[in-house]
Amino acid sequence: PEVSTPTAPVQELLQQAVGFACQLTDQQFAKCMDRIDPLRHLRDEFEIPRMNTIPTADESVVNMDDDGIYMCGNSLGLMPHAIRAIVTQELDKWAHMGILGQFAGHMPWAMSDELILAKMAKIVGANEKEVAIMNGLSVNIHMLLVSFYRPTKERHKILIEEHAFPSDHYVAESQISLHGYDPKTSLVLAKPREGEHCLRMSDVLDLIDREGDSIAVILLPGIQYYTGQVFDMKAITEAGHRKGCLVGFDLAHAVGNIEMQLHDWNVDFAAWCTYKYLNSGAGAIAGAFLHEMHAVNNHPRLAGWWGHQMSTRFNMDNKMDLSAGIAGYRISNPSLMAIIPVKASLEIFAKTSMSALRKKSLLLTGYLEYLVRLYFSKPHSLPQNESNGKTLNDAATDIYIHVITPSEPSERGCQLSLMFNTAIDDIFTQLLKRGVLCDERKPNVIRFAPIPLYTKFEDVWRMVQALRESLNAVKQQKLGRSLDELD
Amino acid sequence: PEVSTPTAPVQELLQQAVGFACQLTDQQFAKCMDRIDPLRHLRDEFEIPRMNTIPTADESVVNMDDDGIYMCGNSLGLMPHAIRAIVTQELDKWAHMGILGQFAGHMPWAMSDELILAKMAKIVGANEKEVAIMNGLSVNIHMLLVSFYRPTKERHKILIEEHAFPSDHYVAESQISLHGYDPKTSLVLAKPREGEHCLRMSDVLDLIDREGDSIAVILLPGIQYYTGQVFDMKAITEAGHRKGCLVGFDLAHAVGNIEMQLHDWNVDFAAWCTYKYLNSGAGAIAGAFLHEMHAVNNHPRLAGWWGHQMSTRFNMDNKMDLSAGIAGYRISNPSLMAIIPVKASLEIFAKTSMSALRKKSLLLTGYLEYLVRLYFSKPHSLPQNESNGKTLNDAATDIYIHVITPSEPSERGCQLSLMFNTAIDDIFTQLLKRGVLCDERKPNVIRFAPIPLYTKFEDVWRMVQALRESLNAVKQQKLGRSLDELD
Ligand SMILES: Cc1ncc(COP(=O)(O)O)c(C=O)c1O
Ligand SMILES: Cc1ncc(COP(=O)(O)O)c(C=O)c1O
Repeated sequence: PEVSTPTAPVQELLQQAVGFACQLTDQQFAKCMDRIDPLRHLRDEFEIPRMNTIPTADESVVNMDDDGIYMCGNSLGLMPHAIRAIVTQELDKWAHMGILGQFAGHMPWAMSDELILAKMAKIVGANEKEVAIMNGLSVNIHMLLVSFYRPTKERHKILIEEHAFPSDHYVAESQISLHGYDPKTSLVLAKPREGEHCLRMSDVLDLIDREGDSIAVILLPGIQYYTGQVFDMKAITEAGHRKGCLVGFDLAHAVGNIEMQLHDWNVDFAAWCTYKYLNSGAGAIAGAFLHEMHAVNNHPRLAGWWGHQMSTRFNMDNKMDLSAGIAGYRISNPSLMAIIPVKASLEIFAKTSMSALRKKSLLLTGYLEYLVRLYFSKPHSLPQNESNGKTLNDAATDIYIHVITPSEPSERGCQLSLMFNTAIDDIFTQLLKRGVLCDERKPNVIRFAPIPLYTKFEDVWRMVQALRESLNAVKQQKLGRSLDELD
Repeated sequence: PEVSTPTAPVQELLQQAVGFACQLTDQQFAKCMDRIDPLRHLRDEFEIPRMNTIPTADESVVNMDDDGIYMCGNSLGLMPHAIRAIVTQELDKWAHMGILGQFAGHMPWAMSDELILAKMAKIVGANEKEVAIMNGLSVNIHMLLVSFYRPTKERHKILIEEHAFPSDHYVAESQISLHGYDPKTSLVLAKPREGEHCLRMSDVLDLIDREGDSIAVILLPGIQYYTGQVFDMKAITEAGHRKGCLVGFDLAHAVGNIEMQLHDWNVDFAAWCTYKYLNSGAGAIAGAFLHEMHAVNNHPRLAGWWGHQMSTRFNMDNKMDLSAGIAGYRISNPSLMAIIPVKASLEIFAKTSMSALRKKSLLLTGYLEYLVRLYFSKPHSLPQNESNGKTLNDAATDIYIHVITPSEPSERGCQLSLMFNTAIDDIFTQLLKRGVLCDERKPNVIRFAPIPLYTKFEDVWRMVQALRESLNAVKQQKLGRSLDELD
């Protein structure tokens, strides 16, 4: 059965509803939740797209003065206001003093990457010296693998998951080929069981146990991009280390989403982008983590002058004096423009904590899941007390949704991946008309991510209403088409 | 002797001076040259630092309402005005529609790198398909070497120059080590002759001829960063190819400075930054070139999803469908913020041509060299007719300057590297007070680059006056100190 005992977040929501004297399905409930949300002020730090600036929004179905409903911060986070001021400040500096800006002002460009390390480190549970800001995400994984993937005849495999984000797949494949091994025999894919979408962590641990002796590097996501499943990074790292594997994580969907303790978990390395939950704009400069146990190592690496100790870097004597740790993996000088949004965004994170964000996130996503299951589950899977007619009479009851994200809150971040029993093209179009921005994965999954930094409970409520309307509209269209065919 | 027959640019200047009825040393001459400069309007495209915003400018020695004297565009180019408008446009887009900006507007973010390729290709003399915009400069050289440096026992060396820019040195060293070879035996350094600063091209060609059979890759600069010497890329490529070497260039100081024909010269690969002559701000995203003869190759590479054909990239099926050519070397999605300045800058280049810029550049640098030799050469090396008392009575005549940049105009770009017969710290400080921004290379070289896009002839004239004043001030200080010591 899809719905069992309410999860802890839903229990909390139900309890709040009693206090508010309303139902979870009431708009009033969402408004009350927003009123008591201790993080509600953070939304003011962001530019929220409005219906009248969302090009797909259709005035015949939405009030153009309303805020849009942004549910794809897992793909591209919303824009922190403060970016504008910092951009202006740094462009002015450039305009006013040219090269002298390298070592002047609030954000001396030559140090722009180092200045924001402390805040970044806090978000992933690392020491400042374990973190660097550089390159793109996939580039960083490559840089780390060049050092840490040292295949031998006995131990030459890289473990990834079958449905890894494509770039990770290509990274692993090409690293294997680079060393003259064959991905066919050296790439190990962790697969969900037949008919399941998520990997069972116990299966992953078993696989590591079984094949670990031949695995050089484990490269898994912190959160799976498609299903939203959290991977148990601590357990995977322990299991990997027990078998002598190095363990790295792609944190694209985990950073800024869930709490992590990369240092305490002894994760060997990790990398992440900043354009999703870190709100730093398309393709923004990425992060990388290298555990301090590897701070000094003799592995080869792709070196560049930015990895040289800062104090002597500009002596230009061509004698490498390598920075310890991940700082020594920096190659090129950092892009000022790319770093500005990261700085602006991290300053917002510094006003709260990952634990406060996660607390809200659990409620938001719990709320979303509750409503989705209530309105869109296959009827027979609804528990008695919730099949209250409202659902069953819904005009779109022949379109059902299966939530493929784990229902256990600790096993997911803020994203829910909804699988429809029909192709999603028309539904997605209807959502766009209603100013709901979300992420389609054809043929039949739409991902929704209520980001705690800037999403209101009312947004979740409105999103679900928009989804109901969308399904109704699609159903009407279908009926219309059938009637046309009868003509 | 330092001064021989005037070079072609100086001859042209002298001829102009006749027409203007003034001397090259007259401010009036510089003003006249600016008046007839066909590119003078391009200066208006840039933010020119003013004395009153240059933090080092000292009101006791300069008029604070004047423009500053910017001579280090070879280190960090000045800022194109248009950046502000494009930043606002793209931040607004982000604010207004979030994720939908990926495929909407003038600069759809997912295509932002491809949209500016044609303009970039033109600047380096390449086909659009031979150029990519990605990563940092040193990162790009690494990416290309990972593919094209395939050392074997017989052919395992990388040829660089002895005084390569440090990052290139570290790149080559680390690539050699990556393959298990030893930089001591696999790194070949082309050295200037004893007592000389520049490499003789014939020596480089001889070296290639002599050692070419064991050289896998030649990695040389298009223009040497320290001396400003142009390397004969065409001849080096031919010589390298004759011996079966691959030939790549670091174009940091060449791109946007001199005319190049990378395609016609059959250069194998190249990379460049955009923060110098391409005016795109600190650490801006870099360029890379791969000759179309290598468009399809079987070398290993560090692959990522951005190298996947765009048309099928987002199918997410984890089957690599590689873009041909350098586009297939892209790994991570490009940083929007980093690309904006490149776009703004390339639009300025599109209003002129490298040949028009080079024409002006030859005159500007010729003018600078003429004045520097006139005022600051060791007296005995001055030809009779120029030792006109003005020079010899100058209070700073005990400080001499030797121009280490080649005097043949075709062998240099816009930069002149001035070597002083004394430590430069105090001189540099005096220049900064006078709002002259230039680049010191301790102990005794200062590099000046009159960039044709935004430098006036009068700037050159004022710079030389400021240098004269600076040397005088330093001399007074020294005299003062000696007198103090006598007390
Ligand atoms: C000649 C040359 N090569 C390489 C570099 C390194 O560039 P990046 O830090 O962009 O990799 C520079 C930087 O100034 C340079 O001047
Ligand atoms: C999970 C995951 N890994 C890797 C990437 C690739 O990122 P980049 O293009 O920044 O290298 C993405 C991009 O969305 C992603 O979601």
